Amino acid sequence: MGQSQKESMFEFILFKQDKNTGARRGRIVTLRGAIETPVFMPVGTQGTVKAMTPEDLIDAGSQIILANTFHLHLRPGEEVIASLGGLHKFMHWERPILTDSGGFQVFSLSELNKITPEGVEFKSPIDGSLRFFSPEKVIGIQRNLGSDIMMPLDECPPPGVSWEYTKDSLELTLRWLKRCKEEFQKTQRGQNQVLFGIAQGGFYEDLRRASAEGTVALDLPGYSIGGLSVGEEKNITYDMLEITCGILPKDRPRYLMGVGTPADFISAVARGVDMFDCVLPTRNARNGALLTNEGVLKIRNAEFRDDPRPISETCGCYTCRHYSRAYLRHLYYAKEILSSRLNTIHNIYFMNDFMRRLRQAIDDDKFDEFRSANEQSMANGSDA
Amino acid sequence: MGQSQKESMFEFILFKQDKNTGARRGRIVTLRGAIETPVFMPVGTQGTVKAMTPEDLIDAGSQIILANTFHLHLRPGEEVIASLGGLHKFMHWERPILTDSGGFQVFSLSELNKITPEGVEFKSPIDGSLRFFSPEKVIGIQRNLGSDIMMPLDECPPPGVSWEYTKDSLELTLRWLKRCKEEFQKTQRGQNQVLFGIAQGGFYEDLRRASAEGTVALDLPGYSIGGLSVGEEKNITYDMLEITCGILPKDRPRYLMGVGTPADFISAVARGVDMFDCVLPTRNARNGALLTNEGVLKIRNAEFRDDPRPISETCGCYTCRHYSRAYLRHLYYAKEILSSRLNTIHNIYFMNDFMRRLRQAIDDDKFDEFRSANEQSMANGSDA
Repeated sequence: MGQSQKESMFEFILFKQDKNTGARRGRIVTLRGAIETPVFMPVGTQGTVKAMTPEDLIDAGSQIILANTFHLHLRPGEEVIASLGGLHKFMHWERPILTDSGGFQVFSLSELNKITPEGVEFKSPIDGSLRFFSPEKVIGIQRNLGSDIMMPLDECPPPGVSWEYTKDSLELTLRWLKRCKEEFQKTQRGQNQVLFGIAQGGFYEDLRRASAEGTVALDLPGYSIGGLSVGEEKNITYDMLEITCGILPKDRPRYLMGVGTPADFISAVARGVDMFDCVLPTRNARNGALLTNEGVLKIRNAEFRDDPRPISETCGCYTCRHYSRAYLRHLYYAKEILSSRLNTIHNIYFMNDFMRRLRQAIDDDKFDEFRSANEQSMANGSDA
Repeated sequence: MGQSQKESMFEFILFKQDKNTGARRGRIVTLRGAIETPVFMPVGTQGTVKAMTPEDLIDAGSQIILANTFHLHLRPGEEVIASLGGLHKFMHWERPILTDSGGFQVFSLSELNKITPEGVEFKSPIDGSLRFFSPEKVIGIQRNLGSDIMMPLDECPPPGVSWEYTKDSLELTLRWLKRCKEEFQKTQRGQNQVLFGIAQGGFYEDLRRASAEGTVALDLPGYSIGGLSVGEEKNITYDMLEITCGILPKDRPRYLMGVGTPADFISAVARGVDMFDCVLPTRNARNGALLTNEGVLKIRNAEFRDDPRPISETCGCYTCRHYSRAYLRHLYYAKEILSSRLNTIHNIYFMNDFMRRLRQAIDDDKFDEFRSANEQSMANGSDA
């Protein structure tokens, strides 16, 4: 058991290991509720899953959401959120929250970042002000937010960098993780928060291995797998994932960061992943790309002009129970706010329901059947 | 009783007439539900009250909503809506709907309109196509929409036009109303729809009188009062309203079109008005202007940065029960969809609750007290 589990209410129960694949059924227990795994986590970047109330999220079957340290630090600021009782109270969401460290956003969304052993300097995209994230700083921010699962600061190197760069980067990430853990322990005063580690290593087998081993050596209650949401060929991505999962301990949850489509979820679950987040279902919803078992339905298409059917005849979501494709198409073209909302309700419900069915398949020793039945039809899930 | 009442389920029950003012308590009974009056009707221009589901509207106390013939004719088209079972089913709203005739929008939103005795020609602001509204056409559109209360085509002359122009205009509107009524009767086949008349007359006493008398002569189940939402001095507006209400029969509901603020509602109710619609609470909500008993609260203000209080301590709406001013300010600056939604829930609840309290005051013979207690604090309700 890691340091955090001794001091916080956080438990991972592994119910079942699939016989033929790496797929596993588990449950993460926190004070704010249990999370059945494998699980999809909707992304609530700015302290709201876009267009959704917490009640909508619960209706759609959500167990845990993700929030962004980077965005909430810049606006409204973690001190404001802390003064209002923490992020859960601020946004009226009582179930678990996972916060990222902001590292990914620093490298992808902000200008002028300078990486030093101490941390990373960047320019706020909101007001251009100079900001600095150190391992200690991001732990402090997440303490203020009060998230249930915290992430350490890591460097996310851009795709295509050299072996040498990747090696230096993963070593920096490991040193930062050590400092994050120390800061976490120093600031642990009975809060129910835990800190995960993040394994990186780019697209190099030996570096994936080195990063996973170095991360596991720090004995944390859960492990994230980073750097695999960038555009590489799927088979290489899954090779890297397999190497990492082979090293991560079986008794800790594994979180594949920022991936991806339902088809990706199946492939990653088969390699032993338990947790997923992705903006795809929410972003696609706002663009009128709706997830179904038969692939993506583009609501703007002329064929739906007077189509009385719901998005999916077999879907039980609020949107499918009450609205036609024709109405959703109308709202989309009229640029109505309700368009984003009804579409998001459907896509989040779809993802949660997809994971529920996937869990059921593992429970029933039918993961292989679920995989072959769904992998093909889901393949175009990212096409928006 | 008017023609419509004989053929449709539509009844207006007048419970009480205030002793000191023109204020009255009534109930409109339709097959889709009863409407306690005086009533505020949220505006659902494009077949949705912006950012709200029907469930949100009901939670916020809405009894009836308004939809726009002009917008729904242009997109998605009334035939599409009819083929899907009518507007109620299309938008999943089971309570009464009032549709305007589109006349106001033709004159305010579209280009190149040409008025002839036959009707009015205009250019679609969506695709520039040439369109034509006749009295018969707007009845046909509203038959397809299936609204519970329909409006006749009227001309809305711009503010400041001459006595001569206004006289010609109201006579045209009367001729159109006669044709609307004939078309209504010709197409009445057991639908539960009624047609109101619209009294115009600009800001000329004698023309207000002539228009009201001519309209009442056509014996309709309810009467709208048009042309008073434009920017004239309040006291002149209320003089015109008083003249019109003095002529309208007591046993029919009176609807003041497109007005206005809570303070306006009090003044108009005091002169005998029963029904109101206005985009103010929904539009203001999206601009962060929130209605309270103490006037408008601008959520963007710096003072709310870490304010843990709800918009109003005495408000029972979903937003006030769960969210702080600080959170609402954050959502506003982050341009989150949830900002429009939570703010709209509050403003519609406020308006409905304001009308509920106003009705209670009439019931309790306390309208004068309600008026003096609220008129002052409400005076800045339009300031957004």
